[in-house]
Amino acid sequence: MASGTGIETVSTNRAFGGVQGVYRHASAATGTDMTFSVYVPPHEPGARLPVVWCLSGLTCTHANVTEKGEFRRACADLGLIFVAPDTSPRGEGVPDDPGGAYDFGLGAGFYVDATEDPFAQHYRMWSYITEELPALVAEHFPADMDRQAITGHSMGGHGALTIGLTFPERFRSISAFAPIVAPSQVPWGQKALPGYLGADRAVWRRHDAVALIEDGARVKDLLVDQGEADGFLADQLKPHLLAAACADAGIDLTLRLQPGYDHSYYFISTFMDDHLRWHAARLT
Amino acid sequence: MASGTGIETVSTNRAFGGVQGVYRHASAATGTDMTFSVYVPPHEPGARLPVVWCLSGLTCTHANVTEKGEFRRACADLGLIFVAPDTSPRGEGVPDDPGGAYDFGLGAGFYVDATEDPFAQHYRMWSYITEELPALVAEHFPADMDRQAITGHSMGGHGALTIGLTFPERFRSISAFAPIVAPSQVPWGQKALPGYLGADRAVWRRHDAVALIEDGARVKDLLVDQGEADGFLADQLKPHLLAAACADAGIDLTLRLQPGYDHSYYFISTFMDDHLRWHAARLT
Repeated sequence: MASGTGIETVSTNRAFGGVQGVYRHASAATGTDMTFSVYVPPHEPGARLPVVWCLSGLTCTHANVTEKGEFRRACADLGLIFVAPDTSPRGEGVPDDPGGAYDFGLGAGFYVDATEDPFAQHYRMWSYITEELPALVAEHFPADMDRQAITGHSMGGHGALTIGLTFPERFRSISAFAPIVAPSQVPWGQKALPGYLGADRAVWRRHDAVALIEDGARVKDLLVDQGEADGFLADQLKPHLLAAACADAGIDLTLRLQPGYDHSYYFISTFMDDHLRWHAARLT
Repeated sequence: MASGTGIETVSTNRAFGGVQGVYRHASAATGTDMTFSVYVPPHEPGARLPVVWCLSGLTCTHANVTEKGEFRRACADLGLIFVAPDTSPRGEGVPDDPGGAYDFGLGAGFYVDATEDPFAQHYRMWSYITEELPALVAEHFPADMDRQAITGHSMGGHGALTIGLTFPERFRSISAFAPIVAPSQVPWGQKALPGYLGADRAVWRRHDAVALIEDGARVKDLLVDQGEADGFLADQLKPHLLAAACADAGIDLTLRLQPGYDHSYYFISTFMDDHLRWHAARLT
């Protein structure tokens, strides 16, 4: 498709009185076509609605949370637009992990602008999520861009925390489900950050929520849910590192450890309603 | 796996305070392994809970409604067990539609016991759903089999209506989403019923909700939701035929035509809560 600010409608389905859409556009940031979903709840003509961004985790596209996130009932009740982007560029010419691993390359963009070859050309998810896609959402949907919130799961929780902490004026609230809070200190991040950003660990700190807080980033509060039966908890997620950083910085972190819950969408969907109500209280 | 009444746990995930499980067993009815899902909501030790059966539509397995049906929150609130079976036998030696069509064979068992070769050996979904699986559910889950309800979507709505109308003592309530109400009169049924049951249309009547009512089947009431933007509405679903039969028979049908809604899980999930509350009111 042609480059520009146009978007192509892939599908729309009525749901909970609103419209769940899937859209595709030629991204200038990634140099590829990108697909994303937007749920627009029922609303009065001419109304402008607050926006919740939801960033997904490793291996996901927009489709996982769109199909399994169970966010539409609450978004309809609360009057929230819900935007779900993809997790990486895709398509011909987009390099993947050399070994085809799930935790780097396709489906694993880590919400950074890569500087390392061969990833620097297309893996520009930071610019895509923070600049290009917001402009499209503002142009094509009844969005009030002065009222935005951000959440995400796992790698997408990392994205939500790092983007939210970097743009505290833009996001009135930030939450995450089982986020990677300190990628510099865990295997997923210790593979992805050098792979995309090179060996200089100082550069990684801008993409590490704990490091951002240590370096002075401040928000009023955060909500994090974490399943205690999550197989990634001990090695990859380490929410106590976020708790310690927030305590030192005076950030009011609500960290809820949920007994018996794992890393799946069964966990996310269970607590999605709480997160959306938490955001709505800060947006409306 | 060995034949018998054992079940193998494929997966369990905590969700909404309960457990979403997927199970597999060697079915005597179909002569194949069969997979199904059961959600058990949070409950007091020793409690026996009412059961909602949910039969799925063409091309589906247990997984579609399990992942996209958005039933767990209401089941947890209302204390309902939710059982989602597969829609056909599967596996080596199970014959499919000769042309590989989606509307016959695998994923399209139509909830009948086939009498026609080569389908008669494995396609015994009526016996599976009405006899074998209820016995397993009663044995392995905290189910109160004196309080059962049944619902379904499309072909599964056909299954819910025909099974519910055949066993009115067993099911205290019946509902459906966009059901096939008169398979004898529409293309899907006019292919499936002779394919599984042979040319004698008198035999088809036991698997046709409208014909069952015409032939004397009676229940107190029914709930049916139907999207007005459903592409199968005019040719395959024809809910007015059910409305006419119910009017003649004195069955209190609540038929809700939902403007803008299609045949997808976005439609089902929107109204799932209403159906579960409708069942709960009759079960508890």
